[in-house]
Amino acid sequence: MKPDRRSASVAQQAFTIDTPGRGLIEITDSIRRFVRNSGMTVGVAHVFVSHTSCSLLVTENADPDVRADLERYFSRLVPDGDSLYAHDVEGPDDMPAHVRAALTAVSLSLPLSNGGLALGTWQGVYLWEHRQRPHRRHVTITLVGG
Amino acid sequence: MKPDRRSASVAQQAFTIDTPGRGLIEITDSIRRFVRNSGMTVGVAHVFVSHTSCSLLVTENADPDVRADLERYFSRLVPDGDSLYAHDVEGPDDMPAHVRAALTAVSLSLPLSNGGLALGTWQGVYLWEHRQRPHRRHVTITLVGG
Amino acid sequence: MKPDRRSASVAQQAFTIDTPGRGLIEITDSIRRFVRNSGMTVGVAHVFVSHTSCSLLVTENADPDVRADLERYFSRLVPDGDSLYAHDVEGPDDMPAHVRAALTAVSLSLPLSNGGLALGTWQGVYLWEHRQRPHRRHVTITLVGG
Repeated sequence: MKPDRRSASVAQQAFTIDTPGRGLIEITDSIRRFVRNSGMTVGVAHVFVSHTSCSLLVTENADPDVRADLERYFSRLVPDGDSLYAHDVEGPDDMPAHVRAALTAVSLSLPLSNGGLALGTWQGVYLWEHRQRPHRRHVTITLVGG
Repeated sequence: MKPDRRSASVAQQAFTIDTPGRGLIEITDSIRRFVRNSGMTVGVAHVFVSHTSCSLLVTENADPDVRADLERYFSRLVPDGDSLYAHDVEGPDDMPAHVRAALTAVSLSLPLSNGGLALGTWQGVYLWEHRQRPHRRHVTITLVGG
Repeated sequence: MKPDRRSASVAQQAFTIDTPGRGLIEITDSIRRFVRNSGMTVGVAHVFVSHTSCSLLVTENADPDVRADLERYFSRLVPDGDSLYAHDVEGPDDMPAHVRAALTAVSLSLPLSNGGLALGTWQGVYLWEHRQRPHRRHVTITLVGG
């Protein structure tokens, strides 16, 4: 059976997030709000962070222990102050932040269905700050759909 | 030279996969079928899993040893029953499944060309079940193209 | 407030890159050029490599030490010649290349804004060759926007 096809349009919004330092910050609501305002019913929400020392992650949004454990795991896998690195201009968490961003992602593509962001029951979208100090982070959401 | 541009439309399909427990399950054919039915000739196929304990992977589809080796590598990198974690509500493979999903991806964007999914010769698309027990997994494919 | 929506179209280009062996090769300019030629002002650029032993990465493009450190980190995390693997048909860097590709990404989605690729100040797009020997790699860029 031939699937329904509807004409696609595009809409974009940029916003900033002030992070309090290393850790996961939920941004699901900002994306949901833009999707709702766009009036699109089916399509894709592309999320992008314009940085190389923070990243984006979809993970469990129910038990905060999950985020704490993710942070603990990545701190062990990519330790700060590792003598392996030549690049440490901005401190012992500088190069580890780039490695963590490489191991996760700076872009995500999330489905839109029935006029909303179609995440699973337990999924939340997070900006993962990998630097120890607070930073102002820039996020771009681009919706493509009909 | 100005590239060809054609009007884009969008089509979406959701399907479920029953996994037999931890391991890689190929889903390339389901995506190819939907692409073919859509009638689109050029564009992008976005694939998304609505879960935080399984993920999506494009990897070698010829030698099954590759999938076995990937599984072995990830089992060593993210061992079950690691005492590091606070979150183990669903057992020793609960938090490792979230970490494996963070290290891989829950969304993929694959090109469509000449009316088909434009994968490389040796590429297959896999759902990677990270939990030990069987699960019903939800996948959404969104096509954007012309 | 309802966001601006404009009609979306799609454009695609494939190109090849000859890599000199393992390491990060910047491809930002090829993507920027195609975006500029397309005449699109807002949307998304999808980049895809048709291989399972190289990958795509957005990372710091200022200090070359960052790329050297990323390579050093991944060489330690995923050592060549690891006795864990059954698959070594093409040598001691064969399976490690597949694992490195799984830990990073074969697809990226980058925003287009104001007629150009909207990367952050320090972001560059790289093809990461994971094999020791030179390879010819195929990259597909698909733009969706208006």
